[in-house]
Amino acid sequence: MTDDAESRHDRGRRTLSRIHDRVGESVVAQLSDIAPDFARHLVEFPFGDVYSRPGLDLRSRQIATIAALVTLGHAERELKWHIRGGLNVGLSRDEIVEVITQMAIYAGFPAAVNALLVAKETFDEIAAAAEEESRQQDA
Amino acid sequence: MTDDAESRHDRGRRTLSRIHDRVGESVVAQLSDIAPDFARHLVEFPFGDVYSRPGLDLRSRQIATIAALVTLGHAERELKWHIRGGLNVGLSRDEIVEVITQMAIYAGFPAAVNALLVAKETFDEIAAAAEEESRQQDA
Amino acid sequence: MTDDAESRHDRGRRTLSRIHDRVGESVVAQLSDIAPDFARHLVEFPFGDVYSRPGLDLRSRQIATIAALVTLGHAERELKWHIRGGLNVGLSRDEIVEVITQMAIYAGFPAAVNALLVAKETFDEIAAAAEEESRQQDA
Amino acid sequence: MTDDAESRHDRGRRTLSRIHDRVGESVVAQLSDIAPDFARHLVEFPFGDVYSRPGLDLRSRQIATIAALVTLGHAERELKWHIRGGLNVGLSRDEIVEVITQMAIYAGFPAAVNALLVAKETFDEIAAAAEEESRQQDA
Amino acid sequence: MTDDAESRHDRGRRTLSRIHDRVGESVVAQLSDIAPDFARHLVEFPFGDVYSRPGLDLRSRQIATIAALVTLGHAERELKWHIRGGLNVGLSRDEIVEVITQMAIYAGFPAAVNALLVAKETFDEIAAAAEEESRQQDA
Amino acid sequence: MTDDAESRHDRGRRTLSRIHDRVGESVVAQLSDIAPDFARHLVEFPFGDVYSRPGLDLRSRQIATIAALVTLGHAERELKWHIRGGLNVGLSRDEIVEVITQMAIYAGFPAAVNALLVAKETFDEIAAAAEEESRQQDA
Repeated sequence: MTDDAESRHDRGRRTLSRIHDRVGESVVAQLSDIAPDFARHLVEFPFGDVYSRPGLDLRSRQIATIAALVTLGHAERELKWHIRGGLNVGLSRDEIVEVITQMAIYAGFPAAVNALLVAKETFDEIAAAAEEESRQQDA
Repeated sequence: MTDDAESRHDRGRRTLSRIHDRVGESVVAQLSDIAPDFARHLVEFPFGDVYSRPGLDLRSRQIATIAALVTLGHAERELKWHIRGGLNVGLSRDEIVEVITQMAIYAGFPAAVNALLVAKETFDEIAAAAEEESRQQDA
Repeated sequence: MTDDAESRHDRGRRTLSRIHDRVGESVVAQLSDIAPDFARHLVEFPFGDVYSRPGLDLRSRQIATIAALVTLGHAERELKWHIRGGLNVGLSRDEIVEVITQMAIYAGFPAAVNALLVAKETFDEIAAAAEEESRQQDA
Repeated sequence: MTDDAESRHDRGRRTLSRIHDRVGESVVAQLSDIAPDFARHLVEFPFGDVYSRPGLDLRSRQIATIAALVTLGHAERELKWHIRGGLNVGLSRDEIVEVITQMAIYAGFPAAVNALLVAKETFDEIAAAAEEESRQQDA
Repeated sequence: MTDDAESRHDRGRRTLSRIHDRVGESVVAQLSDIAPDFARHLVEFPFGDVYSRPGLDLRSRQIATIAALVTLGHAERELKWHIRGGLNVGLSRDEIVEVITQMAIYAGFPAAVNALLVAKETFDEIAAAAEEESRQQDA
Repeated sequence: MTDDAESRHDRGRRTLSRIHDRVGESVVAQLSDIAPDFARHLVEFPFGDVYSRPGLDLRSRQIATIAALVTLGHAERELKWHIRGGLNVGLSRDEIVEVITQMAIYAGFPAAVNALLVAKETFDEIAAAAEEESRQQDA
């Protein structure tokens, strides 16, 4: 592997970690087990090539991705990752709810209802983890 | 019709016109012919209820909508309207191309290729109309 | 071919012709050219096996089919056939517009807008053909 | 809120309850928690504006909705609600099975298989609840 | 039922069993309970009419089907059946992973990620069943 | 650009040209005009990374791609390219028709009907071009 390919991979890892934190690494690890080349492509193309590009800020990119995942309808697992990713790069919960609400117009109400229930679950998980962490710090 | 319902309709018309200019009115007129109530719903729900909400700026909303329309794949007519709408509320051509490029990850390359060809056509039409207008002003 | 297979085919042709009139035959003929077995399956499975079943009247079946085709989004050609088919088995134009309008909730507004424009085109073609026919009878 | 907006909301609640009984209220309550405006839109647009319209009977509307939800493929939660809704407004179990069977033609066999398994689960739940209720009355 | 219809059904059962082994029968049995005619159509049209045709080998047919199910996105249950079916007619695990990887291009990365996780689960189940069987033979 | 990145691009061009002949180059040229980076990604990811992998022969890959494009439903332009691509890497017309026919099971009959009409058009264009070429050689 030459420097450039390596930096494409490194750039991908950096952006993946910037957006998805430890969740990104765990997904890549899960996939590496069954499809190591796919796991590499996932780091290099979406994150190394696309999300790393300077033409659009990460907050706008997460808006686009959340809109796409709601519209696909069958990508609840990825939606959860990217709702967390959206929060990580500066979207508020209310803004995420706004984006999903708007999708009722384009993807239909069932897709929006399902996505809102995913958002609720994600927000609850984050709150539960934060509570758990603060409990451990107090102990 | 009471005041509130009227202002919902008025609010919809204002937002529709803010985003879509004369194109919006022409679509509503086309639909009014065959389905007048649907045309009214189109003004009132997407534009009166959703796009008019304060929680997200129109530039972010157009990013979400363009992402959704690329992902749907079968909505080239609406994509054209919303690419124009995106330009009207402050997205640059390069930003629109970035959003579509990113959709290759979620909606697949065919959806992104088709959307880029729609964007090209839309940009060309706008350039042609501008040229035509400047020619008439010179005459 | 035995009697039963033949009657399955015949039953399919009868139901196809009941719903789609001469349009059905022309579609089957077009397909027979490139994929004769597919054309036979199209007559035998959807029309011979499903639409011919007694458990649901043809009017209700056309409501379901129009809803499905609007939702698919990429099936405008078939939507046109089935709007005509719906009229042939007793749906009114207004009822067809109602079904499409309702689809905005499930398939999104773009799918409904596109379907309404297809309905408009179909109704216009039928009106033009009727006018043409009455002109020829007067001559 | 003026009278008209209120009656639009009230009309929506009435129609929602007519079709979905207590299930509808529970969905609205769940959504109100995370997205109160969306929950209001859900009552007002689909149920207040569309399902309440006189141009198509509720039985026909549920046929269209079940067809759409099977075709979407990713809306099993909503399909379950609307299968119950269909029974509530007069569709028989056999008619619902007919509509789903017909969808194999348009949405493919996997979508139809999945929907039939959802229907089976829904019918079983209803039977179990009825049995439970009769057991309690006997006690 | 005449000879020909019977042989169509028999041909379907034979091909179903060739591809899906006991899994096919169990799916048909599950569906027979709620929709016996649909269960019969499932044997006769996909398996009796299409998969039994000589123009394409079963290995190629399973490649096409796995590609389609990944693209649909909402058919994880069927994907699992057909990954097993692919192994039964001669595809290797690596070839199945290749087909799914390629689908990232057309159906998007979320559909491919989800399908790879389904493949992993299927391969693990097969390994666990084989281990269990060998344990019982040793006992 | 380093050697490795260049060879990834070169490998992509070679595979693209192997499958799509001059059509591939013309698509890339069209896209380069509006989205040069996307055009580069299209060469490098699908063709340089995926289609160039040794784990599956190109004939099998085209079967998977045609199946996916029929299932997407909105990718008729790409379907035409890949039907030509399938012929270029050794699929017969009858095998392509078989793959599309089989998709009626998974993507529904409308998607299959539309794809067969695209195949017919593609085959006719190839025949017309061949005739034209032989006429020019005779002259």
